[in-house]
Amino acid sequence: MVNQLISKIKSTGAPIVVGLDPMMKFIPEHIQKKAFEEYGETLEGAAEAVWQFNKEIVDHIYDIIPAVKPQIAMYEQFGIPGLAVFKRTVDYCKEKNLVVIGDVKRGDIGSTSEAYAVGHLGKVKIGSTICRGLDEDFITVNPYLGSDGVKPFIKVCQEEKKGLFVLVKTSNPSSGEFQDRPVSDAGGRPLYEVVGEQVAKWAQEHMGESYSYIGAVVGATYPEMGKVLRGIMPKSYILVPGYGAQGGKGKDLVHFFNEDGLGAIVNSSRGIIAAWQQEKYVSFKEEGFGEASRAAVEEMRQDISDALNSR
Amino acid sequence: MVNQLISKIKSTGAPIVVGLDPMMKFIPEHIQKKAFEEYGETLEGAAEAVWQFNKEIVDHIYDIIPAVKPQIAMYEQFGIPGLAVFKRTVDYCKEKNLVVIGDVKRGDIGSTSEAYAVGHLGKVKIGSTICRGLDEDFITVNPYLGSDGVKPFIKVCQEEKKGLFVLVKTSNPSSGEFQDRPVSDAGGRPLYEVVGEQVAKWAQEHMGESYSYIGAVVGATYPEMGKVLRGIMPKSYILVPGYGAQGGKGKDLVHFFNEDGLGAIVNSSRGIIAAWQQEKYVSFKEEGFGEASRAAVEEMRQDISDALNSR
Repeated sequence: MVNQLISKIKSTGAPIVVGLDPMMKFIPEHIQKKAFEEYGETLEGAAEAVWQFNKEIVDHIYDIIPAVKPQIAMYEQFGIPGLAVFKRTVDYCKEKNLVVIGDVKRGDIGSTSEAYAVGHLGKVKIGSTICRGLDEDFITVNPYLGSDGVKPFIKVCQEEKKGLFVLVKTSNPSSGEFQDRPVSDAGGRPLYEVVGEQVAKWAQEHMGESYSYIGAVVGATYPEMGKVLRGIMPKSYILVPGYGAQGGKGKDLVHFFNEDGLGAIVNSSRGIIAAWQQEKYVSFKEEGFGEASRAAVEEMRQDISDALNSR
Repeated sequence: MVNQLISKIKSTGAPIVVGLDPMMKFIPEHIQKKAFEEYGETLEGAAEAVWQFNKEIVDHIYDIIPAVKPQIAMYEQFGIPGLAVFKRTVDYCKEKNLVVIGDVKRGDIGSTSEAYAVGHLGKVKIGSTICRGLDEDFITVNPYLGSDGVKPFIKVCQEEKKGLFVLVKTSNPSSGEFQDRPVSDAGGRPLYEVVGEQVAKWAQEHMGESYSYIGAVVGATYPEMGKVLRGIMPKSYILVPGYGAQGGKGKDLVHFFNEDGLGAIVNSSRGIIAAWQQEKYVSFKEEGFGEASRAAVEEMRQDISDALNSR
């Protein structure tokens, strides 16, 4: 799957993943109204609005991006109907040949991590029948519980040729509270480097052609740390959140990429899906929110491309 | 909700939470067969088997325990039908007056943590209507992303009088890989203590009557660390996994409790729900799996009570 991701990044020229993180405030009035008329102001109504919103955006951008990253929290907030739309979105994006990264940040131990792994990436045996649960291509994983929390995911990835992005250094302001703490038995280096080194080891265990199936999450908001982590994890794709709305810019991203121009995929969520609410895309109007998203993707691709070309 | 939890612990004399973590191999043949006859060997069939299994166990133990802890991974493995049974289980246990701790180990940043928080503990506004998603009483939270990952959960807990258990030191063998690393700017103390100190601060921000709504997870498998963490987080309830199947025994648990005999709640999952598969409960037979669970709860209560009385 990492080979497929890279091939799609090359063919689109866009090391971009679009975060399908729908919040009600991003969804145009006419979509909400129609959904509520059909299903009421219920979890089902909200889920229907999310689905119609996602579908129109995906229809407008699927040919110019390699991947999407639905954030499951935004679906869980609408309970089971919301989660059903998460699954519907995953399936629809796969039909459109997009690589789907489930942003689920799961992490637990032993048999529990196994259950998450089979639920999101693998298959489960029911009686004598093989079934699949949510069936994403990649998921994000939280490493706080250590190797025996992550290895069950790696095992399923090996069986399924799927992949992970392990949280190393997150994009939020207080990510340093624990992640940046200096570790004395690692020469005082920060915890995120220690985690990064472990990710590099896991990455070696599950290599694709030129990159590993085991990637990392490193926030765009910390470009200097990104530079160091790039060196520590040479074979891991880095998923970079924090571009756009969180303050990251194209020029902050260059160090996340390797010399081959590969090795990083940059996420933007509200910068793309809520583009229609930005001043500069106002001409698309509310009805043209899908086209506004497309314009925002094209601008982001240009910004990253310019930054990479001028390094 | 922490007041309610404590009052139920006192009235049952059982500082016990039963982990409703159904795996297919724990579910008796006759339950599986009936479910598959009705729904086929499908995700729906597996989910129905899980539901019937859970219901019978809950019916046999709800009057002698204060709380249950469904592990969402075990439901996610069966996709959306599995998650629907997670919700059904939560609702059923609440009807039975059990405190429900959703073991979901969520953790993300800003608006994403907010979405998880409203989805699991709070309410969401849809149009002009207020709806609730999964609606547990407590959930477990992963702290790796720092304060701005946890505070949105605390905010919803304050509004809803609900609570959290924050992962501090997990019960698994490799939990030390990151959690035990010595932090040089904290005098070389291990990371789990640094996290524990932060939990103690969060706990102060949201106090119930005698204990805080913000608790911690500390594994039974690390009793010495439990003793230290008990001191660091005096007002936090400690949720203690690792009893029974993972190797923890009653005598390992005493330091997790405060002098008042409160402050800890011990989880057992397969030790209770799969009791019927143990040699010592063989007389209950497969059909008596609910009664075997009840016997296992009673034995666990006695073991903990003996350990606390002899300290």
